Amino acid sequence: MSEISPLPLIGAAAQRARSAARVLRTLSTDAKDAALTAMAEALVERTDQILAANATDVDAARADGTPEAIIDRLRLDADRIAGVAGALRELVALPDPVGDVVRGSRLPNGLDLRQVRVPLGVVGIVYEARPNVTVDAAGLCLKSGNAALLRGSASAFATNTALIAVLTEAGEKAGLPAGFVELLPADRASVGELLGARGLVDVVIPRGGASLIQRVVRESRVPVIETGEGNCHVYVDASADPAIAEAVVLNSKTHRVSVCNSAETLLVHRDVPFLPRLLSALTEAGVTVHGDPAVLAAAGAGSSAVLPATDEDWGAEYLSMDMAVRVVDDLPQALDHIARWTTGHTEAIVADSATAIAAFTAGVDAAAVMVNASTRFTDGGEFGFGAEIGISTQKLHARGPLGLPELTSTTYVVTGRGHVR
Amino acid sequence: MSEISPLPLIGAAAQRARSAARVLRTLSTDAKDAALTAMAEALVERTDQILAANATDVDAARADGTPEAIIDRLRLDADRIAGVAGALRELVALPDPVGDVVRGSRLPNGLDLRQVRVPLGVVGIVYEARPNVTVDAAGLCLKSGNAALLRGSASAFATNTALIAVLTEAGEKAGLPAGFVELLPADRASVGELLGARGLVDVVIPRGGASLIQRVVRESRVPVIETGEGNCHVYVDASADPAIAEAVVLNSKTHRVSVCNSAETLLVHRDVPFLPRLLSALTEAGVTVHGDPAVLAAAGAGSSAVLPATDEDWGAEYLSMDMAVRVVDDLPQALDHIARWTTGHTEAIVADSATAIAAFTAGVDAAAVMVNASTRFTDGGEFGFGAEIGISTQKLHARGPLGLPELTSTTYVVTGRGHVR
Repeated sequence: MSEISPLPLIGAAAQRARSAARVLRTLSTDAKDAALTAMAEALVERTDQILAANATDVDAARADGTPEAIIDRLRLDADRIAGVAGALRELVALPDPVGDVVRGSRLPNGLDLRQVRVPLGVVGIVYEARPNVTVDAAGLCLKSGNAALLRGSASAFATNTALIAVLTEAGEKAGLPAGFVELLPADRASVGELLGARGLVDVVIPRGGASLIQRVVRESRVPVIETGEGNCHVYVDASADPAIAEAVVLNSKTHRVSVCNSAETLLVHRDVPFLPRLLSALTEAGVTVHGDPAVLAAAGAGSSAVLPATDEDWGAEYLSMDMAVRVVDDLPQALDHIARWTTGHTEAIVADSATAIAAFTAGVDAAAVMVNASTRFTDGGEFGFGAEIGISTQKLHARGPLGLPELTSTTYVVTGRGHVR
Repeated sequence: MSEISPLPLIGAAAQRARSAARVLRTLSTDAKDAALTAMAEALVERTDQILAANATDVDAARADGTPEAIIDRLRLDADRIAGVAGALRELVALPDPVGDVVRGSRLPNGLDLRQVRVPLGVVGIVYEARPNVTVDAAGLCLKSGNAALLRGSASAFATNTALIAVLTEAGEKAGLPAGFVELLPADRASVGELLGARGLVDVVIPRGGASLIQRVVRESRVPVIETGEGNCHVYVDASADPAIAEAVVLNSKTHRVSVCNSAETLLVHRDVPFLPRLLSALTEAGVTVHGDPAVLAAAGAGSSAVLPATDEDWGAEYLSMDMAVRVVDDLPQALDHIARWTTGHTEAIVADSATAIAAFTAGVDAAAVMVNASTRFTDGGEFGFGAEIGISTQKLHARGPLGLPELTSTTYVVTGRGHVR
């Protein structure tokens, strides 16, 4: 129980969500799955209505001079709506984490102890342009028994309003309590209220760029699960296989540059003989290399695509076809570099030496460590966990892909027959 | 990586702890256990030195007019030192959580996925008078591979300084890195620095009264694990066995009143015929009952120990021989009362109806639910988990007793042979 200050923008929605959470935690998996299916069907049936709302957002964005790349993220079409409906149906197939017995035993005094997964309660999610997040987040929260408070971007507000109207109507018709999902106003102050709503909201998950995440972490009195900042490193050891090194480096950097699990920095042991080849492979793939003096020397005078690296490069999450490259004296120097600059997302080693692999794995402090594999594999889908709400880069509660079990807490249920101490 | 502001009081200690954490995470269980044993021996060997420092604290407290009950918490003697040394030896016997594989599988593409427990890093603990917490916390952090930043109370500073000197010397002689445990200055500003040291400190655990915990939660930019506030309820259903109800209520309230898992409020179904007997059992045991009108009526005119209850009583964590008692119409009303007033620690039901038990267990949102058992069982030792650093009343990361596994995070280690997407 905590003091709750008045929340003019989100208070009513948060109270409805709080009430809904008390019902949601008791729903059977069948009831939740039936609602997810109904919501998926309603999205497809009411595609026209959603597209009309989306056209409003797209027109307004275009009138504002929004870049086409961002407009493309905002835009829905029938295929994309079918896609988000399909994502809801995929949730039906995933196991319900609620009720899972995490551990259980009979204590020496005869008490039966079970640690059981329960929903978190009310989950707030703050995110940016893509309207598919609205549906994904609502579905993940429902399947895990949580009420969802969604605060999307102003640019997608008409679309999100239409999506939530469809989800709410279908969900309530399928028996869900009012308030199981609530769309919050898209102004800046609503985020502030959400972050202050300790006691009403159990967790806030920011999903977006670094500045959003940092605002949330700085301001929130509600517990936060940080997601997504990824300054990922690939370290190529002296024992690395040249072909594996080239494949892993190129894939980690270039497979999709705009995502948090793409690599930003390459660290190469000074005894690696094939550094020039790695550098030309990167530049041939269109990557601008930002190198330390040893890299500049290895690249040679003829390579115009190598720029000198500064501390800004070591700290950069480029999210572009740029890569910082440094030659290190040994593995401990690589670990020092990573400890200095990591965001704790994913670090990779390419090596054949078991000693080097063990030292790297033990020495790196991150959500994921890749051994002879691309950083791009840090992903709930790739890990076989199904849908995810983001990649947690924090150490408490959940680290790595945030799937359904990570949206739960636990309760110890202790059963006796009049046991006293 | 985060911006770190200058920390004049704790910066040097926090940096030493940060460096130590990188070494501690790689230590073998044997190395940590050998250090724990050496630390236990050193405490016993240097009992005289510790007692001399403790006498300074005790004399100063007495000169300040500190109540004897608090002085008793502060006071050490040879037996108590042997006790804390014994607690370190018990940690040797507990399994090391670091390196535990939480889950693992071979993915369809041949990647080997393992989720492995790793230390959190640097753990800050803010606590009050008892100097045994200094040793317990240092030991729990060491066994779980974490560096510890300990901020104890000013009244125990001489004792804590002596204890940490002994632990540091013995630990470092046994091979631990400098900075594995650090005692922070005991002034108020050092807490503020600790709570702001995001990026240097991985988690702060407050261990103490409600005002300490609330300050930490309000101010901290470092993730917090809340412990300890317990407004615990016992609900006696209409189906309850009278003898079990009396035993559980009395034990929950009176076994030890000053602890967070003692009960503060009793909710009794209106069809329970034995309410008068429960009330007289409580008053005979010396409990002051604060009752609603139905309780006052049941107690009858002769019972002077029953006072009228107000909202303050429903919200009170008395930690004394007081109990708020309310008659409820049914189980849903009991759940509503608990939802309104709970601190999320422990709620108990006494009932024989499986339907009532299931509804209570599903409907209550707390770290622990006791079924026909005393609230006093919510305890790491009672649960068979060994030593604990407190009882978490929050939902993220750890809920319930905080033992060694709860002082860890995880890393996904993904091993391929040149795998790319």
